[in-house]
Amino acid sequence: MPTYKAPLRDIKFLINELLDAPAELAKMPYYAENETADAALMEQVLDEAARFVEGELVPLNAVGDQQGCVRHDDGEVTTPEGFKAAYDKYRKAGWTALDADPNYGGQGMPHLVSNVLVELLNSANVAWSMYPGLSHGAYSALHAVGSDELKDLYLPKIVSGEWTGTMCLTEPHAGTDLGIIRTKAKDNGDGTYAVSGTKIFISAGEHDMAENIVHLVLARLEGSPEGTKGISLFLVPKYLPTADGKVGERNGVVCGSLEHKMGINGNATALLNFDGATGFLVGEINKGMNHMFIMMNAARLGTGLQGLGLGEVAYQNALAYAKDRLQMRHTPRVNPAESADPIIVHPDVRRMLLTGKAYTEAGRAMAMWLALSIDTEHHHPDEAARKEAGDLVALLTPIAKAFMTDNGFHIAVQSQQIFGGHGYIREWGMEQFVRDARIGQIYEGTNGIQALDLLGRKVLMDGGKKLQKLAGMLQEFVDANEEDEHIGEYVTALGKASQQLGSITMVVGQKAMSGPEGADEVNAAAVDYLRFFGHVVYGYLWARMAKIAQEKIDAGQDKDGFYLGKVQTAKFYFTKLFPEIKALAATIKAGNEPLAVDDRLFGLERALITA
Amino acid sequence: MPTYKAPLRDIKFLINELLDAPAELAKMPYYAENETADAALMEQVLDEAARFVEGELVPLNAVGDQQGCVRHDDGEVTTPEGFKAAYDKYRKAGWTALDADPNYGGQGMPHLVSNVLVELLNSANVAWSMYPGLSHGAYSALHAVGSDELKDLYLPKIVSGEWTGTMCLTEPHAGTDLGIIRTKAKDNGDGTYAVSGTKIFISAGEHDMAENIVHLVLARLEGSPEGTKGISLFLVPKYLPTADGKVGERNGVVCGSLEHKMGINGNATALLNFDGATGFLVGEINKGMNHMFIMMNAARLGTGLQGLGLGEVAYQNALAYAKDRLQMRHTPRVNPAESADPIIVHPDVRRMLLTGKAYTEAGRAMAMWLALSIDTEHHHPDEAARKEAGDLVALLTPIAKAFMTDNGFHIAVQSQQIFGGHGYIREWGMEQFVRDARIGQIYEGTNGIQALDLLGRKVLMDGGKKLQKLAGMLQEFVDANEEDEHIGEYVTALGKASQQLGSITMVVGQKAMSGPEGADEVNAAAVDYLRFFGHVVYGYLWARMAKIAQEKIDAGQDKDGFYLGKVQTAKFYFTKLFPEIKALAATIKAGNEPLAVDDRLFGLERALITA
Repeated sequence: MPTYKAPLRDIKFLINELLDAPAELAKMPYYAENETADAALMEQVLDEAARFVEGELVPLNAVGDQQGCVRHDDGEVTTPEGFKAAYDKYRKAGWTALDADPNYGGQGMPHLVSNVLVELLNSANVAWSMYPGLSHGAYSALHAVGSDELKDLYLPKIVSGEWTGTMCLTEPHAGTDLGIIRTKAKDNGDGTYAVSGTKIFISAGEHDMAENIVHLVLARLEGSPEGTKGISLFLVPKYLPTADGKVGERNGVVCGSLEHKMGINGNATALLNFDGATGFLVGEINKGMNHMFIMMNAARLGTGLQGLGLGEVAYQNALAYAKDRLQMRHTPRVNPAESADPIIVHPDVRRMLLTGKAYTEAGRAMAMWLALSIDTEHHHPDEAARKEAGDLVALLTPIAKAFMTDNGFHIAVQSQQIFGGHGYIREWGMEQFVRDARIGQIYEGTNGIQALDLLGRKVLMDGGKKLQKLAGMLQEFVDANEEDEHIGEYVTALGKASQQLGSITMVVGQKAMSGPEGADEVNAAAVDYLRFFGHVVYGYLWARMAKIAQEKIDAGQDKDGFYLGKVQTAKFYFTKLFPEIKALAATIKAGNEPLAVDDRLFGLERALITA
Repeated sequence: MPTYKAPLRDIKFLINELLDAPAELAKMPYYAENETADAALMEQVLDEAARFVEGELVPLNAVGDQQGCVRHDDGEVTTPEGFKAAYDKYRKAGWTALDADPNYGGQGMPHLVSNVLVELLNSANVAWSMYPGLSHGAYSALHAVGSDELKDLYLPKIVSGEWTGTMCLTEPHAGTDLGIIRTKAKDNGDGTYAVSGTKIFISAGEHDMAENIVHLVLARLEGSPEGTKGISLFLVPKYLPTADGKVGERNGVVCGSLEHKMGINGNATALLNFDGATGFLVGEINKGMNHMFIMMNAARLGTGLQGLGLGEVAYQNALAYAKDRLQMRHTPRVNPAESADPIIVHPDVRRMLLTGKAYTEAGRAMAMWLALSIDTEHHHPDEAARKEAGDLVALLTPIAKAFMTDNGFHIAVQSQQIFGGHGYIREWGMEQFVRDARIGQIYEGTNGIQALDLLGRKVLMDGGKKLQKLAGMLQEFVDANEEDEHIGEYVTALGKASQQLGSITMVVGQKAMSGPEGADEVNAAAVDYLRFFGHVVYGYLWARMAKIAQEKIDAGQDKDGFYLGKVQTAKFYFTKLFPEIKALAATIKAGNEPLAVDDRLFGLERALITA
C-alpha cells in the first residue's frame, strides 16, 4: 500500500526562499489586517494540513478506488466507506473555509496556502479531494458575480462545507463546444427560472457527504441567441433552502446514473437530469460563459495540482521501492552481503526518479508562484501590480493545467515502471496513480484546448504583450546571471530558449494572420508550443532555485544536502529534460502542412479541409 | 464498444511490395517443398485470420476485461465467458499449428504469416491471445532443445492446441534478476526431477481452456552453482501424460492465487506453487537460461506485437470517433448544415491520428521484416544469408519489443485523448486499450532491460559489427536516393541520423571501456539510445515505403489514394515524429554525470555509488 509524507521542507523553501512570500503578502492590506499571512502561522497551518491528509485521507485512497460510488434506485448516491466521516472532520476543522472571505465565515488565508493544501489533498486522495475542490470552484464564481441575496444565503453554507457545489457544463453532444448546449431555462416570472436538460460528467454531482448540493448550471434562457452569447449561469440547489438557510423542499434535479470510469472511482461522476428544476440567475443574463470561466480558471489550476500531487506521491513511492528492491549488481557492488544491490544504484532507475523530482519540484514552484500572483492580483494595493499579476496568472494557468497534468501522468507511468511487474498489480497502488492521473489531461478543457487557450487567446490575442512582459523578466535574470560560475551554463541555455520562444511566437503569429488557414496554423502548433513554453518557465524556476541553493552551499548552510540536491536536480533538468525543446522547435516549425493531408488518407468519402 | 477491421490492405502492401516476400520465401526449400509460401495461399490464410479475430475475438474483449478470471478453492481457474468456446474454434481451425513443424502436426507456414496472425489477435483481444501466445513460446523452446522423447510426447498436443504452455521464470524476489531464483530441482534418479518453489506472474498459468498445461520452469538443480550458470529448464505438466499421450495423474503444481491487475484481466496471471512436482529436464543441465532465451526472444517480438496491435485498434477507433463527433468550427466551416464540424478537421486531432498511423505502419513494416528475417535465419539455404538474418533478428528484437510497446501505449493514450471525457468512461473501451497496453512496456524484460540488451549485448559486445552491417544497408539506400526529388529530403535526414547513431555508439562504447564507471554510462544511455535507434529504423522503412508509393503514383496506379496516404504519412513522420532524435542526441550526450547525484538527494542514509 502506498505511503505519503507531505513535502513540507520543499514547500517552506519555496515560500520563504524562492518567493519571499511573507514579505510579499505583508504588502497587501487584506492579509495584513486579517493577520493571516504571518510566516509562522502559514507554516503551522501547513503542518496541520499535512497531518490531516496523511492520517485521514491516504488510508482511504485505495478503498475509494475499490468500492467506488453506488447509485440507488431513488437517485441517491453512497460514497465509499470512510469518505463522509473524513469529510465531516475536514470541514469541522475549518479546511473548507481556509482561503474564503471572512464575511461569509472564511478564514481569509492566502491562496498561496490553500494552493499547498490542494496539492497535499491530491497526493493523498484525488477522488476524495474533488468533493471540496468542486465546492471551492462554485464558491469562487458565486462570490465573484452572485447577487448579495444569493451570496448571503449560499456562501456561508459552502464555506462551512455543510453544502457542496458542482459545475454543470457538459452535455452528451457538447463538451469542448459549450455553444451548442441544449439545457434550457424559462423565466418563472417570480425571480426564479425553470431549468431543464441533461448534464453529464458532473464530478461530485451526487453524494451523501453533505446535506445539500449547489449546482452551477449553464443553460440557455428562452429567447436568448444561439451560441456562447446566449448562455446564462444558474444556481440550482438539490434542496431549495428555506429563508433561514435550512434545507427545504427537494428540487427537480436527479442523478440518472453514475459513470464507470478508468479511475477517480471514489468520486461520483453523475449524469444529472434537470426537469423544470428551480434555478436562480447568477450574474447577468447571457454572460454565463464569462462567469463560468471564473470557476474554470480556478478548476484549471486545481487540475494542474492533481498532476502535481499525483506526480509527487508516485515519485515518493517509487523512491522507497527503488531503495528497498534488491535486483542485479552494480559495478562495483554496493551491497555485497545481500544477494543483489538496491535498484536505485542503476542509472536508468535514477533517471526515472530524477525525472519525477525535477518535474515535481519545478511544478510546485510554478504553482506557488501562480498562487501568490492570484493573491497579488486580488489584494495588492497597487493597480499596476494587480494588473501585472493578473496577466501572469492568465498566461500561466493553461501551462499549469496542461504541463503539470502531462508531466504528472508521465511521472506516474515512470514510477510504476520502477516497480516492474509489481507496478501492474493493484495491491501495490501504483497503477491507481496512473489511472487517476489520466483524467487530468482530459477534463476541465483537454490539454489540447489549454494549448489553444495559451497560444491563441493568452499570447496572440494581445499581440504578445503578456509574453513579452514575462520574457523581459526572464531576460533580466539571464543578464544578471549568465556569467555565474555555477549556473551560467543553464542560464545561457534558458536565455536562448526564451528568445527562441519569442521568435517561434512571431512566426506562428504571422502565419495566423496570413489568411483563412491561419487558424489551422495556430491549432497545429499549439500543443508543442505549450510544452516549449512550459520548459522555459521550468527552466527559469530551476535556474533561480539553483542560484539560491548554491548561495546556501557557499555559505556553509547545507547540513543535510537539501541545497546540493536542488543544484544537482537543476543540472539533471537542464541536461536531461530541457533538451526536449530541440525536438519541439523542429515540430512547431514544420507547421500545419504535414497535417493537411488528403482526406482519403483518413478514409473520408468527401473532401473536408483539403480540396 | 470498439470495433476492428484487420488492416489487410497494408499487410498485403508490405508482403508484396516492401518485402517481396513470396520471392524471398521461394528461395527456402522448407517453404518451397511444403508449398506454404505461395502468395495466394498466404493471402487466403490472412483473410481467414481476419474473419476469425473480427468475428470471434473482438466481441470477447470487453467481456474478458469486466469478468476477469476466477480461482476456485481447489486452485482451478475459470476464464471469462466465451473464452473457452472461442479457443476450441481457434484450435480446431488449425491456428495453433500455423507455423509449427509438420513433423508434429504443424502446417509449416512462414513466420511472416504467423506474425501477422499475432498482430491481428492482439488488436482483437490481447488477454485472450496470450493463452495461445504462451503456448507458442513453450513450443519454440521445446522444439529447439527438447529430447526426442519429450518432443514426441508433448509437441503434437501443443501444436494441436489441446494442451497449452507457460513460461515460469519470475519469483517474488527475482524478476529481472533470474540468477537469484530459489526454485529447486532434485534428481529423482529415474530420469525425472522433483521441482519445488513458488513462481509468480505466470501468464495463462492456470485456466479451463485446455485439458493440460505444460509449464516450462527455471529451477536450480541440487548441487548446481549459484547465479545464472546454475539454472536448468524443466518441463512440469499440470497432468502427467500417460505413455500414449493421454492426460494422467495430477502433478504437484497448484495455482495459489491470481493477481488483480491494471489490465489484461481476461488472462489468468497465476502464482504457482510447485511442491515436489515431477519435472523433466529440457536441454542441458545448467543451460536453462540459454534455452529460456529461445522462448524469451519469441515472447519479446510477441510483446512488441501487442503494442502494435493495440496501437492499431486504438487508432482505428479514434479515427472513427473523430469523423463522427461534431464539436467546434473549422475556418472555413466544412459542415454548415450541422451544429458543428467533425473534430477530424482540427489539425491537433489530425496530429494525434497521424501519430497513430505513422508509428503503427512503420512498426508493422519492422515486425514483418523481422519475421521474414526469422524465416531466413531458419530456412535459407545459404549460410551467410542465415547468419546475416540472424544478426538482424538479434539487433531488432529489443527494438521491436520496447519501441513498439512504448509507441503502442502512446498511441492508446492519444487515441483515448481524442474521445475527450468519453475516453475515460469504460463503456467506450478506449481506456481498456490504455490499461492493456501498459503491461507490454513492463513484462518480458522491462523496456529498460531491452535497451540494455540492445546497447550492451547486441551492439557493443561484438564491437558494433551487427550495427555496422545495418548501417551499411541504410547507407546504400541513402546513396541511391538522396537526390530523389520526392523523398530526397527525408533520405538525407535519415543518412545523417544513421551516421549520428554510429558516432553516438562510438562515444558510449569508449566510455563503456574507460573504467569501472563504464557500465553506468551504458546504463545511463540505453533507453534514449534505443529510441534513437528505433527512429532510424522507422525512418528507413518510411523512406522505402514512400519511394515505392511514389512510383505507383507516378505510374498512375493510385486510384483510392492508398499510395498518396503512404507518401503523406512519411512526410508527417519525418517532420513531426523523427525530430525527437534531436532531443535524444542531447540527452545521450549528457551521459551518466547528471545521474550520479549525491545519495542524500534520495534520502539514502549511506552513500551507495557516490563517495
